[in-house]
Amino acid sequence: MLLKFKNRSITALSCLVFSLGSFAQVHPSLVLTKEGVSEIRSQLGKVPVFDASLADVKAEVDAEIVLGIEVPIPKDYSGGYTHERHKKNFLIMQKAGVLYQILGDEKYAIYVRDELMSYAKLYPTLPLHPQTRSYARGKLFWQALNDSNWLVYVSQAYDCVYDFISPSDRSILEKDLFRPFADFISIGSPQFFNRVHNHSTWGNVAVGMIGLVMHDNELLDRALNGLKNDGLPEGMKDSDGGLIKKPGQKTGFLANVDEPFSPDGYYTEGPYYQRYAMYPFMVFAESLQNTRPDLKIFEHKNGILIKAVYSLLNLTNSAGEFFPLNDGQKGMSYYSRELVSAVDIAYLYGGKDASLLSIAEKQGRVELDDSGMAVALGIKNNLQKPFEKKSIDLSDGPEGKEGGVAIIRNKTNGNELTLVMKYSSQGLSHGHYDKLSFSYYQNSTEVLQDYGLARFVNIEQKGGGNYLKENTTWAKQTIAHNTIIQNETSHFGGDFETGNQFSSKKYLFDVSNPKMQIISANENNAYPGTSIQRTMALIQDEGFEKPYLLDIIQINSKTANQYDLPFYYFGQIMATNFIYDTPKTLEPFGKANGYQHLWKEASAVLSTDNAKISWLNEGNFYTLTAVTQLNDEVYFVRTGANDPNFNLRRDPGIVFRKKNTQKATFVSVLETHGSYSTVTEFAKNAYSSIDSLKVVYEDASYIAVEIKNKLGVSSLFILATKNNNENQKHKLHINNITYNWVGPYNKTIIKK
Amino acid sequence: MLLKFKNRSITALSCLVFSLGSFAQVHPSLVLTKEGVSEIRSQLGKVPVFDASLADVKAEVDAEIVLGIEVPIPKDYSGGYTHERHKKNFLIMQKAGVLYQILGDEKYAIYVRDELMSYAKLYPTLPLHPQTRSYARGKLFWQALNDSNWLVYVSQAYDCVYDFISPSDRSILEKDLFRPFADFISIGSPQFFNRVHNHSTWGNVAVGMIGLVMHDNELLDRALNGLKNDGLPEGMKDSDGGLIKKPGQKTGFLANVDEPFSPDGYYTEGPYYQRYAMYPFMVFAESLQNTRPDLKIFEHKNGILIKAVYSLLNLTNSAGEFFPLNDGQKGMSYYSRELVSAVDIAYLYGGKDASLLSIAEKQGRVELDDSGMAVALGIKNNLQKPFEKKSIDLSDGPEGKEGGVAIIRNKTNGNELTLVMKYSSQGLSHGHYDKLSFSYYQNSTEVLQDYGLARFVNIEQKGGGNYLKENTTWAKQTIAHNTIIQNETSHFGGDFETGNQFSSKKYLFDVSNPKMQIISANENNAYPGTSIQRTMALIQDEGFEKPYLLDIIQINSKTANQYDLPFYYFGQIMATNFIYDTPKTLEPFGKANGYQHLWKEASAVLSTDNAKISWLNEGNFYTLTAVTQLNDEVYFVRTGANDPNFNLRRDPGIVFRKKNTQKATFVSVLETHGSYSTVTEFAKNAYSSIDSLKVVYEDASYIAVEIKNKLGVSSLFILATKNNNENQKHKLHINNITYNWVGPYNKTIIKK
Repeated sequence: MLLKFKNRSITALSCLVFSLGSFAQVHPSLVLTKEGVSEIRSQLGKVPVFDASLADVKAEVDAEIVLGIEVPIPKDYSGGYTHERHKKNFLIMQKAGVLYQILGDEKYAIYVRDELMSYAKLYPTLPLHPQTRSYARGKLFWQALNDSNWLVYVSQAYDCVYDFISPSDRSILEKDLFRPFADFISIGSPQFFNRVHNHSTWGNVAVGMIGLVMHDNELLDRALNGLKNDGLPEGMKDSDGGLIKKPGQKTGFLANVDEPFSPDGYYTEGPYYQRYAMYPFMVFAESLQNTRPDLKIFEHKNGILIKAVYSLLNLTNSAGEFFPLNDGQKGMSYYSRELVSAVDIAYLYGGKDASLLSIAEKQGRVELDDSGMAVALGIKNNLQKPFEKKSIDLSDGPEGKEGGVAIIRNKTNGNELTLVMKYSSQGLSHGHYDKLSFSYYQNSTEVLQDYGLARFVNIEQKGGGNYLKENTTWAKQTIAHNTIIQNETSHFGGDFETGNQFSSKKYLFDVSNPKMQIISANENNAYPGTSIQRTMALIQDEGFEKPYLLDIIQINSKTANQYDLPFYYFGQIMATNFIYDTPKTLEPFGKANGYQHLWKEASAVLSTDNAKISWLNEGNFYTLTAVTQLNDEVYFVRTGANDPNFNLRRDPGIVFRKKNTQKATFVSVLETHGSYSTVTEFAKNAYSSIDSLKVVYEDASYIAVEIKNKLGVSSLFILATKNNNENQKHKLHINNITYNWVGPYNKTIIKK
Repeated sequence: MLLKFKNRSITALSCLVFSLGSFAQVHPSLVLTKEGVSEIRSQLGKVPVFDASLADVKAEVDAEIVLGIEVPIPKDYSGGYTHERHKKNFLIMQKAGVLYQILGDEKYAIYVRDELMSYAKLYPTLPLHPQTRSYARGKLFWQALNDSNWLVYVSQAYDCVYDFISPSDRSILEKDLFRPFADFISIGSPQFFNRVHNHSTWGNVAVGMIGLVMHDNELLDRALNGLKNDGLPEGMKDSDGGLIKKPGQKTGFLANVDEPFSPDGYYTEGPYYQRYAMYPFMVFAESLQNTRPDLKIFEHKNGILIKAVYSLLNLTNSAGEFFPLNDGQKGMSYYSRELVSAVDIAYLYGGKDASLLSIAEKQGRVELDDSGMAVALGIKNNLQKPFEKKSIDLSDGPEGKEGGVAIIRNKTNGNELTLVMKYSSQGLSHGHYDKLSFSYYQNSTEVLQDYGLARFVNIEQKGGGNYLKENTTWAKQTIAHNTIIQNETSHFGGDFETGNQFSSKKYLFDVSNPKMQIISANENNAYPGTSIQRTMALIQDEGFEKPYLLDIIQINSKTANQYDLPFYYFGQIMATNFIYDTPKTLEPFGKANGYQHLWKEASAVLSTDNAKISWLNEGNFYTLTAVTQLNDEVYFVRTGANDPNFNLRRDPGIVFRKKNTQKATFVSVLETHGSYSTVTEFAKNAYSSIDSLKVVYEDASYIAVEIKNKLGVSSLFILATKNNNENQKHKLHINNITYNWVGPYNKTIIKK
């Protein structure tokens, strides 16, 4: 589990030593309550979004009931038949339980009961799952993680039909199925259960949810506070190479709330796993709130669980898709079922913020529970307000001191440009070696991409739907990202334990001027002896059709090194202002650390002050203008080398290279401009508006960049690189002109 | 111009020797008429689509009038400033003229007059355009083609403001601008004007339109019937390598109607150029109909111009995008301005077919003329009916005897699969060497693509927006298409004159059974001594989620050869049932004929009876199952080799290869199945439903293919390959079973 939290002193936890005897002894009491069910029944037929969601779920469950119950002997990896069947079973049982409560039709209760009884017959006969790839194998599934998914959902089903099932059947279920199940994924799988990780979150919640239904204080305590004695050997690792547990690490649900979330609600593994974990976080919190309101779980750590939902919604592009930071599958979005429940619960338990209703309205469905009804009623009553995603800086680390992720947006004339700059901590075992990397969007289109993960989740043909080895050899490596690589080695030498000790540090985040928004951060540990500062600004200037992205990287090392800076674009190269060579045969770009996965499609040695590269993608033009020096090199690369199973996409990149230098400064401007329609065949504003880009001043304390446009107007950007005090007065002479300003940066327009 | 029409005897022309003195002498009389203008004025504010189109055009023209008139000295290629400015000028003048007629506001007439007077000053001073790439340079533009575009639009503008301009100004315009302009693009450019080609169509129409406005019989005769004496040297070629004119070739507008269109309305150059040519064809026809109704131009050749519009609409995918046959830029669609006018005119002059209104409704705008008002009124009155694209076989050649293009569609449960099989003639100078090639669509997504052209139309950075050399070295070559290549040479040795002499021949087209639609054609000239028959069927069978595509290619040669069969898919390879090697460095797939542009990413020598390859694209799974023999080879290739300017996309392909064989049979089935969502992360039906694919019988007269699905049910398809008589009785023994049937093919379900 990867404990990087060094000086923890989370006192909030101590107040949670509560008496475990005060359970609500009624059913349902997790995501549905008796009062909630009455309210829902009274509103049926009157609340369109709820009614539609109910009709969808009813149709789905009814179709499954007709097909009959199937509880196969476990055999397959994800994507395979038995995996998908058991997965479907838990999803359908949860829905059938809810339908029983809402519609009162016993056929749903019978379905759940009978299926549970089948499981109670099967479960005691099961050995470990036959597939051996996981560090913590399950019984129904190849991973204890999926077993835990099962129990989180099935606990809700059991809660809904609890009163319907006879005491003797309940006794069988609890003795043969639920208790051994809960014990297996906790006591029987401590390396899975007793961590701080999205895996253990699921495990904790599974045990806690069934504990709540069975009124089992011991299980609830185990869920909230972890195993007291787990017997885990020090230094044990999981299948992804992540350390299981640091000595002295607190565990259990509360530790999993406290540590991975920053005070801003950013989850250190990144949005893809935050989305995955939000379901257990939120349904268990809801269940605790309904059964143990005295715990005030939604107020825990200043309301962190509700904040986390807002953080997730902000970590999306204009189509609602999560930025694929760290291991993240592209295309996952706030339309996922986890976000439907998260938004509904955040609405009901987070103060009924009307802006959440606009997200729920887009989702077009709600949970069939108290929170879903509250949301559906809000929409029915037209209470929704737009959810406006503003520029935001999300801190990382339990105390918000371990770097962060800055999201800078500029929305002008219906066109949204979004910079996502990552200067966070490692991100646990799903983290990538991508300090100071960034991605860039025009509306929902990736302009410069983060590759995301190398995996086809749940597609069995591709390595059982699991992580592919290229996730380690390519996707996690630094060269796979839009950031600096020194001497063709990844940050921290690609060593997880080392990377896990450090985070980048914010230097400056200022979005107070919507036309000049800036993030700057330092990374001093990725390469020992080398300090890197990256400053990025989204600037809206006259003379430019759209805002442009200014990127300044300053590197200072004790030794002379080679530095590479990739830009992974999409689309077709239109033009360059330099001549490049294309080889007759393609060689890999390097031998290791991800370089072996890139083909070297073209290369150039530069002799100009600026290198200019334009491309066209999805009807938009982009031009990258870079400050270059004599003998700087440029490479055009593409993923796909050493990829014996076609596991990688074939995506293009541009790599700038400076060799044998202690100090290096990379400065570039990316313009978004013009358009091309294949219907009108008009190319509008197809050319860069930049005449020249120059570093006009640089010393140990300042850097100044001049961007001269084709109308002859220059924008001069000056950054004080060592003093981020907002009130500091600065004075600097550049080319015989004296500039005076206050604060860490200054921008001046110069008309000559 | 590429005359391939051997035995022409078009007698319809003879009836067009009309008296040239009977012009209507009123203005406007081309696309607008006096009566039409009255009708339009009386309906203003009452017909939403017309009003909206009018408002758009008015806003556009008003903005241009504010900016003022600019008539720069010609300098640039397409995409460059002067080109785009003159292009904008003619488009805006045409619109301003129309606005003057409809709104009666003199500012529009003044704008047109003043701009025309500027042109009248400039034109006499102009030498040939300075850019020299074209075989027929213009004066305003680098091609006489674009000059002709200018005159086609400007003639309409002049017609609209004719009565407003003083006789003395008219005299200047006609003497200094229009007559020399018309003479230059005709008499001065016979290699451009006196052809059968989309170029000459524009030239003819330009001369004809201005002739109509100026009441000049000589110009009209020149337009309709071409130049009597053009002095063109025999064997002269254009910039694309196309022959200008065959001895004895008829020319002029009427020849350009008669020859490139088949009786079904298919234009031999393909839909992209048909779209381009439809504008001059239709506006000139409309103008002739309004001025010389006695010519009955819309009845010419059995109403070919109206049929051509239907043909074009059928040559689109479900998003309205044209199939990129021959030189065609992907993304061009029936939303283009040329199709707006073509649909409007076809509606008004083609019997007011209500199904055209549904296309016009999607287009969302109409021409600001009599035809546009008719359409807008139809939509206002809710007369529109769906335009249903059915399976259709479009013949090629002036008499419909030179092959064709078959479009087979299956629309089931909202999912449309479309096969486009090309067995046409060469397609003039824009033709590709792609006999018996095909492309395949799922809805608007390309499953197996036709590469289209290698050009970025009007994007100046890419070779002036003109054809790139890779269009010749890659896009036109046979290996760029999903068809058979013998010995790594293109069809007809890639020789245009040879290819232009031949067409493939239809053997069978039968879509009477929507669950079993079939096209079969023969090609006996692409490789002398080699006969090729390709049979493709879109079959909807039980046991398959969606229809599948059966593909049978039988080759018989006098010599032993190597045969390659590519399939250009999109997406990511999921799995294969064979082992393949991936090289450490990438080499080109071959040395010439397009092979030099492919990288060889992987290869396999097969030892199984079936090769199976699955891939995932845009959330859908596809599996290709091929019958293979020992030592057949498979290659995974990708475009991009020998591409020094990044002019090619990086698209993947699979190539099946059989070596050293006189007879070869390629049989495959392509399944479309399942789905994957990145939001739910569910993979549905991710596997092929085919257990085995076998050629169970093959002799000189029959071939039988058995497709056995995973439920154990087999589909037996038998084709009589040498007798396509519908009434022929057949009897065949296969594996001790006797099959009797009538007609060229039989399909039987066998449950074992």
